[in-house]
Amino acid sequence: MDATLRFEIDDLYSAYVACIDEGRFADWPEFFTEECVYRVVPRENFDRGLPLSTLAFESKGMLKDRVYGVTQTLFHAPYYQRHIFGRPQLLEHRDGVIRTQVNYLVLRTRQNDPTELFNTGRYIDTIVRENAQLKFREKLCVFDSELIPNSIIYPL
Amino acid sequence: MDATLRFEIDDLYSAYVACIDEGRFADWPEFFTEECVYRVVPRENFDRGLPLSTLAFESKGMLKDRVYGVTQTLFHAPYYQRHIFGRPQLLEHRDGVIRTQVNYLVLRTRQNDPTELFNTGRYIDTIVRENAQLKFREKLCVFDSELIPNSIIYPL
Amino acid sequence: MDATLRFEIDDLYSAYVACIDEGRFADWPEFFTEECVYRVVPRENFDRGLPLSTLAFESKGMLKDRVYGVTQTLFHAPYYQRHIFGRPQLLEHRDGVIRTQVNYLVLRTRQNDPTELFNTGRYIDTIVRENAQLKFREKLCVFDSELIPNSIIYPL
Repeated sequence: MDATLRFEIDDLYSAYVACIDEGRFADWPEFFTEECVYRVVPRENFDRGLPLSTLAFESKGMLKDRVYGVTQTLFHAPYYQRHIFGRPQLLEHRDGVIRTQVNYLVLRTRQNDPTELFNTGRYIDTIVRENAQLKFREKLCVFDSELIPNSIIYPL
Repeated sequence: MDATLRFEIDDLYSAYVACIDEGRFADWPEFFTEECVYRVVPRENFDRGLPLSTLAFESKGMLKDRVYGVTQTLFHAPYYQRHIFGRPQLLEHRDGVIRTQVNYLVLRTRQNDPTELFNTGRYIDTIVRENAQLKFREKLCVFDSELIPNSIIYPL
Repeated sequence: MDATLRFEIDDLYSAYVACIDEGRFADWPEFFTEECVYRVVPRENFDRGLPLSTLAFESKGMLKDRVYGVTQTLFHAPYYQRHIFGRPQLLEHRDGVIRTQVNYLVLRTRQNDPTELFNTGRYIDTIVRENAQLKFREKLCVFDSELIPNSIIYPL
């Protein structure tokens, strides 16, 4: 077992989540490789192998577009996000490609409202090293409830 | 401090929880030794040293029976579970017996419903090595709320 | 990367949270150095650099006073707390001073009530070694929702 790699993976997730929860959305695409996939998928579709996604982006350019939308054009009530998650599970490490998964819970807090359960599910990710840094080449957010309170605006 | 052992313990918990959350219930008993104890206990009883448990199984055979019940005979509305938990705390490691504890939160999602808080509490576990693999010899799920929404059907 | 230090930090947080969740409040001040700061701050104030805190204690003596209040004089309905949190992020380690942060969720369970979301946010901490043990020199609990159900009685 490679302790250093495990700590690096922990650090990648911690930094990823801190970026989102602190609302530094412009930094979010930098956690991904140039060619990448980011998808938010209901568990029911995922389990049945159905391709329909709630959100699907297929390059870092599309992630940047999304950030532009989120910060500049989408009309929405702002909210805080807070991710709670444990240690990522290291599923495979072969030929420089790392596969991980971890359960997550996202809490949402709107101004003048109590905190709510917003989204929970599982990240299923593929990680590679790009310029000495670990980056997501693929990130699937497979979420449990098809009832989404309002919309998913910010990245999960 | 034995880094390898700690990672192994992390991996045991991650695999245990993934098994349950993915609904692979037939694999659940394999996380336990042949002679084992699995109990789900309200915190109030646990704190007072009272023996009453919500669920109590005392061998791998009883766990397999439970799985049969859950998957074949118990009448219940299906739901998804999602466990959120941090790093297990290593309380003791002596003569090959490992004692750990960790807080957990189980979220429940029923079809066409939003995700709910289902059960939260603390695992208090005894782990031993059997055929080179770490297994639970005892797992206590000490949960905080005595108000259980419907029933606890699936393993925690 | 210093694996031993990371495990020590994990252990500090696990022990801290176990102390609170098990209601061993008299032990809580011992997680801090003699000169210390403990503050509970709404995120909105923190983000704007405003100094107002919900709770602010500035020495171990004040923490002990708080414990006295919580256990002896404050009139309140008792409740269980349960902290869920992941791995603390190691932000800096210089000249013996360690800076960390980690997201947390506190669940509350009152007798005869279901478990509720009580408080979520981020610990932003400064840790030093005192008599060979890691202790908090500063702990900020920056919480997301300004709507606090009843009051924050117990330490977060």
